[in-house]
Amino acid sequence: MLGNGVVGILSESVNKWERRAPLTPSHCARLLHSGRDKTGVSRIIVQPSTKRIHHDAMYEDVGCEISEDLSQCGLILGIKQPKLEMILPDRAYAFFSHTHKAQKENMPLLDKILAERVSLYDYELIVGDHGKRLLAFGKYAGRAGFIDFLRGLGQRYLSLGYSTPFLSLGASYMYTSLAAAKAAVISVGEEIATLGLPSGICPLVFVFTGSGNVSSGAQEIFKLLPHTFVDPSRLPELSGTAKDAAQPTRSSKRVFHVYGCVVTSKDMVQHKDSTRAFDKADYYAHPEHYNPVFHERIAPYASVIVNCMYWEKRFPRLLSTKQFQDLMRKGCKLIGISDITCDIGGSIEFVNQTTSIDSPFFRYDPVNDSYHHDMDGAGLICQAVDILPTEFAKEASQHFGDILSQFVGNLASTRDITKIPAHLTRACITHGGVLTRPRMLLNLQDHRKGSSMYMVVL
Amino acid sequence: MLGNGVVGILSESVNKWERRAPLTPSHCARLLHSGRDKTGVSRIIVQPSTKRIHHDAMYEDVGCEISEDLSQCGLILGIKQPKLEMILPDRAYAFFSHTHKAQKENMPLLDKILAERVSLYDYELIVGDHGKRLLAFGKYAGRAGFIDFLRGLGQRYLSLGYSTPFLSLGASYMYTSLAAAKAAVISVGEEIATLGLPSGICPLVFVFTGSGNVSSGAQEIFKLLPHTFVDPSRLPELSGTAKDAAQPTRSSKRVFHVYGCVVTSKDMVQHKDSTRAFDKADYYAHPEHYNPVFHERIAPYASVIVNCMYWEKRFPRLLSTKQFQDLMRKGCKLIGISDITCDIGGSIEFVNQTTSIDSPFFRYDPVNDSYHHDMDGAGLICQAVDILPTEFAKEASQHFGDILSQFVGNLASTRDITKIPAHLTRACITHGGVLTRPRMLLNLQDHRKGSSMYMVVL
Repeated sequence: MLGNGVVGILSESVNKWERRAPLTPSHCARLLHSGRDKTGVSRIIVQPSTKRIHHDAMYEDVGCEISEDLSQCGLILGIKQPKLEMILPDRAYAFFSHTHKAQKENMPLLDKILAERVSLYDYELIVGDHGKRLLAFGKYAGRAGFIDFLRGLGQRYLSLGYSTPFLSLGASYMYTSLAAAKAAVISVGEEIATLGLPSGICPLVFVFTGSGNVSSGAQEIFKLLPHTFVDPSRLPELSGTAKDAAQPTRSSKRVFHVYGCVVTSKDMVQHKDSTRAFDKADYYAHPEHYNPVFHERIAPYASVIVNCMYWEKRFPRLLSTKQFQDLMRKGCKLIGISDITCDIGGSIEFVNQTTSIDSPFFRYDPVNDSYHHDMDGAGLICQAVDILPTEFAKEASQHFGDILSQFVGNLASTRDITKIPAHLTRACITHGGVLTRPRMLLNLQDHRKGSSMYMVVL
Repeated sequence: MLGNGVVGILSESVNKWERRAPLTPSHCARLLHSGRDKTGVSRIIVQPSTKRIHHDAMYEDVGCEISEDLSQCGLILGIKQPKLEMILPDRAYAFFSHTHKAQKENMPLLDKILAERVSLYDYELIVGDHGKRLLAFGKYAGRAGFIDFLRGLGQRYLSLGYSTPFLSLGASYMYTSLAAAKAAVISVGEEIATLGLPSGICPLVFVFTGSGNVSSGAQEIFKLLPHTFVDPSRLPELSGTAKDAAQPTRSSKRVFHVYGCVVTSKDMVQHKDSTRAFDKADYYAHPEHYNPVFHERIAPYASVIVNCMYWEKRFPRLLSTKQFQDLMRKGCKLIGISDITCDIGGSIEFVNQTTSIDSPFFRYDPVNDSYHHDMDGAGLICQAVDILPTEFAKEASQHFGDILSQFVGNLASTRDITKIPAHLTRACITHGGVLTRPRMLLNLQDHRKGSSMYMVVL
């Protein structure tokens, strides 16, 4: 079967909100109509789905076949994994498997894949020669997550007695397109610029952590509001600035813009030897030489923390629960956390649960260290949705398929994984019933002592 | 104080979502700038609010005074009641008091009003000479409620595995205006017309009960979708029709429009003597001579029931819990109830609770007779929000104030309630510490045997 040029597209089954597809009908059209000699793809068989953003009929119209049965396919594509019982032997599969760090919850999947001698390509591991991921949804997570957060912010402010323009915004998925969602944010921005925000909630300061795709997606939306970016060092000055910006002749002052502040690791930590300036390479090599300072230098001035940064356990946390509780006792004005990275128990310690698109917020009350599912009451609101990009299923699928369709010919027509480009070989996790990545084996050894099933072949 | 020409506008305190105002800044501008001789209004004092849809500064700009203190006002206007401790003696008040049917929960309010010798005008009782209410929000309830329901319908269908254009809709309050919300519904309609609905959920039939303001508001939104209205008698034919409408050449048929059906009392009941035709006057006079038939003739064919009708206990219910349970056992396709009238334990028996704008749905599982607060699982979804018009706070306030500002001069400048127009006198519930409506006294007597406090003066 491997390399037979017949591509299957899975019906997604992991999460009811998953409406993305790895290839859109227009990608399929291009692959099919240029002919197998050119693209490596001869047929595309699509599992029917009543929730995929592109309807079955649209695939059918461009020459795909609609069938539950993918047994004729040598290469089967999904966004997330298929149901275990649907995994066919000796095929190539490509999807986000979340197995290469030996994630415990996905080990049954890995077992099944090895048992069926599947060649598994994991999108997350398709990286270019400079180490950058080629297939990623991060920017869509940033966009969708920040819009959803603004919507929740409107609800939270109403709970606190403030009507704000943020109330006039829907969740990302409630728009027919990214463009329509952006237009709505622009309209909120216009209302802020003309009618203003209540002075009681200002200055409204959004702190973005990190500078990758997720952060740039979130900032792209933020920039649609009337805004000023400030340097982290100037955060303490803001309270005064906001007063100046209000119209002084009115008894009920209003504020006509919001603030943004982008912080990176240099603003989060400080060398234990205070005479030494921050050095990123040194910090990454020796995080244990650094103390956290985010809770002193940044958090006291933030209204909202938009968490977009990569974090590992070896680094100090951005905000520990203890630090946050101390801050709240001192009367810090933090109203919410948008944890777009959705790093549970990670850089922001009290974010201990993921939330769903249906119900994207929980409320954390630091005084009682308690978690709630309403918007009314003490504490702050937190958003931690782990499937944000599907809210813009159409655009995210288009973006993803644009890149994937460059690789799909190689994956569909090759039997020998050593003969495909290096970035694809590196993304191949299993082949012929064995693991192909030494590092993954090490990860697995931590979890499963003494298993003889796993061996390195590359 | 009465009749001194000074008008107060309350800050609303009953519900966090209440953002409406009885008069907008532009109404205030007209009342103030034409002069007291012409309008009867000399000053307007507005209690500050950070959640009213019109900001304090907008009232200030047109010459209103902003102050918590309304003690100089002879007439005080609200949408809903003030906090009890804020009620000042010997003033005139106008708001929706929900007391004239002796509603138990509002009797402390009535006691306070009588004790303070307040002249209370209830908007709900301002009716024209033909018995029609002059000041009402019903159409806005219908509009807001139906949009909110469509949004929930999208979520519910997704739970059932269907992606539909309804997912691309926000709640009514998530739009900057009614016009923007309508544009979004039109956009959903375009998607239905071009890409269709999955055949598995079709024909999609919306049954509207009643033909008043609420129903006309809901239908106004419904008509923005590609639709066909069918006569109640033709509902059984629809299943066949839907199949014809789908495109026959595709394996995955889709349907490109929805159905509406408006039912009134003649479709809900039948005379016990089956030889007699339906006679509305007879039904209203002798509802006990009629049997319910809605559960046999209408409900089996409805996907959604949009409940917009007035109901009293003397009439048969639209749908009893038992009838509904029987229907569901037989495999009826009802997916949801939009109870815009929010008639708890009323015409639809199992609707036993109001819901909030934040969380507008509950799920009722008829098999276990159980109530849930998620969208996933057996049964059907129900919406029963009792404060819908505030979702379009701007337009609803404009509409309301357009009418109220015609009356406000009389109310603000008259000391003697017998000298104001009859429709206002009739709306005066209490005056000088006594009740003014004989019927209300009767209602109250049912609840409070032997109280000597209440006496009729008009």
